[in-house]
Amino acid sequence: MKRAVVLLSGGIDSTTTLAIARHEGYDVYAMSLDYHQRQRVELEVARRNAERFKVVEHVIIEIDLSSIARSALTSDIEVPKDRDVQRLREIPVTYVPARNVIFLSLALAWAETIGSGDIFIGANAIDYSGYPDCRPEFLRAYEEMANLAMKASVEGRMRFRIHAPLINMSKAEIIRKGYELGVDFSDTWSCYDPQERGALSYTSAVTHHGYVPCGRCDSCLLREKGFREAGIEDPLKHEVKY
Amino acid sequence: MKRAVVLLSGGIDSTTTLAIARHEGYDVYAMSLDYHQRQRVELEVARRNAERFKVVEHVIIEIDLSSIARSALTSDIEVPKDRDVQRLREIPVTYVPARNVIFLSLALAWAETIGSGDIFIGANAIDYSGYPDCRPEFLRAYEEMANLAMKASVEGRMRFRIHAPLINMSKAEIIRKGYELGVDFSDTWSCYDPQERGALSYTSAVTHHGYVPCGRCDSCLLREKGFREAGIEDPLKHEVKY
Repeated sequence: MKRAVVLLSGGIDSTTTLAIARHEGYDVYAMSLDYHQRQRVELEVARRNAERFKVVEHVIIEIDLSSIARSALTSDIEVPKDRDVQRLREIPVTYVPARNVIFLSLALAWAETIGSGDIFIGANAIDYSGYPDCRPEFLRAYEEMANLAMKASVEGRMRFRIHAPLINMSKAEIIRKGYELGVDFSDTWSCYDPQERGALSYTSAVTHHGYVPCGRCDSCLLREKGFREAGIEDPLKHEVKY
Repeated sequence: MKRAVVLLSGGIDSTTTLAIARHEGYDVYAMSLDYHQRQRVELEVARRNAERFKVVEHVIIEIDLSSIARSALTSDIEVPKDRDVQRLREIPVTYVPARNVIFLSLALAWAETIGSGDIFIGANAIDYSGYPDCRPEFLRAYEEMANLAMKASVEGRMRFRIHAPLINMSKAEIIRKGYELGVDFSDTWSCYDPQERGALSYTSAVTHHGYVPCGRCDSCLLREKGFREAGIEDPLKHEVKY
């Protein structure tokens, strides 16, 4: 019996990471974070994907970051639109201070509690927004710190490992890998700035709790670029015509 | 203007750390964690000490760790009593997996948000319960990781520093330092296993929301040892006669 904690936001990357962990034979404990993010609709998507991939347990941890972590995703700062995602140089305002640090720390607690040293995160340092806590040097330092923090590792019974199987993949490669492993991309959520049903013209009944993606934030544009480069039509885009 | 985030649980160590940060001239942003701990009464004590030391802001972040972090402080495991605190060798069941990792991660987010690189924590590796995430090697690794995770440090504008001014002090030294800086120890809370008013005999009306310390958990015993070695009577013990 191999167990792993998988961080699951509901996007392409974390859902593909979930598929990889299952494919590698792990019994998965999926964790999502309700940090009062603008795109909370992703949690519902995460819940369905956790079910689809038959996780042992899925927890959604609620922690209101809006009072302590200023970001376009947690406050009234506007989400930037129509940027050139081929050359994202600066860390954008959608950066949430310490998000992956917090996320991994909760995963670490749970991992030790279920007797596992394996934590999966869908971090990617190729087609990404430049967030520092998605880079391999951060993940290596996190792993080292973790092994000094926890009872199981300090007592020599376990070593904690942060698995980031997508870290060096392009978005197109991630999408191909996801397809190969059975991810239903029509039910993944990328958009940072969900638009209410009716705010955009759309032709399909298939929306996510009345929301459609904006199609113009970094995350939507990186998604579009990924599908284009993979030579696959995005089923979500097809359905909701955003 | 110097700002700092101070982690404040309400005990002797964190309250003395708050006093030190104020004494060093920092404008303090105090953070407490409501993780559904058994000794939640400490939060009320923390609130009063934050006020006493005139912090700029005090946030209490709620995050229910009981479903993911198994510990005597978050579940129905019994808190051990009457142990020999002169020789605590094993990490006890009151250990909460990744507690300081989680706590520091939230402080990190807030520090960057308020434009500060300074985080104070009352970690102590002398008169303590042996928790791995109180040791200097952990704190050093945490600091290194933090500086790879955050926008402000990665962009070279700031370096994050974890201040642990008590790390090498005995409990007696901490108590003397606290007295020197004006800490009111009758309003600090150490006990892991608060007893409801009436469950113990006591003679004073001064209790904390109807609770008195058990007097027998590691934390109560370390407190007792500290006051004894400092040659000072514990004003809380005097008042509630636990």
